[in-house]
Amino acid sequence: MQNNRLTQQIQFILEIDKLKHILRQTLLTDSSRRENTAEHSWHIAMMAIILSEYASPETDISRAIKMLLIHDIVEIDAGDTFCYDIQANLNKAQREIEAANRIFGLLPDDLESELREIWEEFEQQNTPTAKFAAALDRIQPFLHNGQTKGGTWRLHNISREQVMKRMAPVEEGTPELWDAIQQMINDFTEAGYLKA
Amino acid sequence: MQNNRLTQQIQFILEIDKLKHILRQTLLTDSSRRENTAEHSWHIAMMAIILSEYASPETDISRAIKMLLIHDIVEIDAGDTFCYDIQANLNKAQREIEAANRIFGLLPDDLESELREIWEEFEQQNTPTAKFAAALDRIQPFLHNGQTKGGTWRLHNISREQVMKRMAPVEEGTPELWDAIQQMINDFTEAGYLKA
Repeated sequence: MQNNRLTQQIQFILEIDKLKHILRQTLLTDSSRRENTAEHSWHIAMMAIILSEYASPETDISRAIKMLLIHDIVEIDAGDTFCYDIQANLNKAQREIEAANRIFGLLPDDLESELREIWEEFEQQNTPTAKFAAALDRIQPFLHNGQTKGGTWRLHNISREQVMKRMAPVEEGTPELWDAIQQMINDFTEAGYLKA
Repeated sequence: MQNNRLTQQIQFILEIDKLKHILRQTLLTDSSRRENTAEHSWHIAMMAIILSEYASPETDISRAIKMLLIHDIVEIDAGDTFCYDIQANLNKAQREIEAANRIFGLLPDDLESELREIWEEFEQQNTPTAKFAAALDRIQPFLHNGQTKGGTWRLHNISREQVMKRMAPVEEGTPELWDAIQQMINDFTEAGYLKA
């Protein structure tokens, strides 16, 4: 191929295939195995379509979908950091910045900037779009943990209080869903999926 | 949960988790295992972002991304039909319509209509957006087969001619990429990945 721009684009497309190897803590809803980050990214992008009515009016849904597709690509280098692992979260930001430099850096400059900006918007959590995306990113594993009778929570002895804190972005990103999520947290605690 | 609409939305979100179990013929680029349809859907949605400049001007890229996320959900019931299996392709359309009825039917009516319309637009291949989406849906496994030294092609003894025919939608959906794809088909044939 003589076209250098297209070569860079194809190299990036082939590189991100590696996201399918990054395993998250979350189990699939039938508990058969852990979910990988590529699948997770697809699932939350689908949720942005299905739950768009709960976003605040200033949310750009199409941009949220792109954001959800892109936001975990850094895990190819940085790995998935378990949200309740305090130690691993200490250097997570630095690891992910280095990953973003390398991976988005494979792209032609204009595309690198575009993806980098979307990724940074998610990380900074200053826009309604980023907040909507973050809410969905929390709700999906939450639903999986409910469906698997406490899956990851029980394995790691996670408490109601920890999950309440973890789910806080839902209140701002999808305020209309906050009541339902709190109700589910209560139900899951009562069922013994979460430590009281 | 008392909110029936939200209950339907959550049921759909949990149902589509099953797409992560549907295995395609395509191998991951490191040949370690077959790809599943959820991962594939994420990958081609990412490609719509990276390759958007090659779409014809009338293409709605945001809609193409939604289309790529949605278009294979019917495989939860209908399974992945190998593109070179003539017998299995005979009743593919009917199996997929029944799947669409059941799976999109889990949603509230307005969302069911929205997803159904997007899915049908892809199936009918009458719009620039659907044609762009179809081209990407062909290019991704093509790149994987190149990367895995002929992976699925060699396994099933696929010829250059079959792949030329299979890749034809690229000429209309992303015309600027057609030359590069033809060149790659020639290179892959020369390398022995495809039967001459």
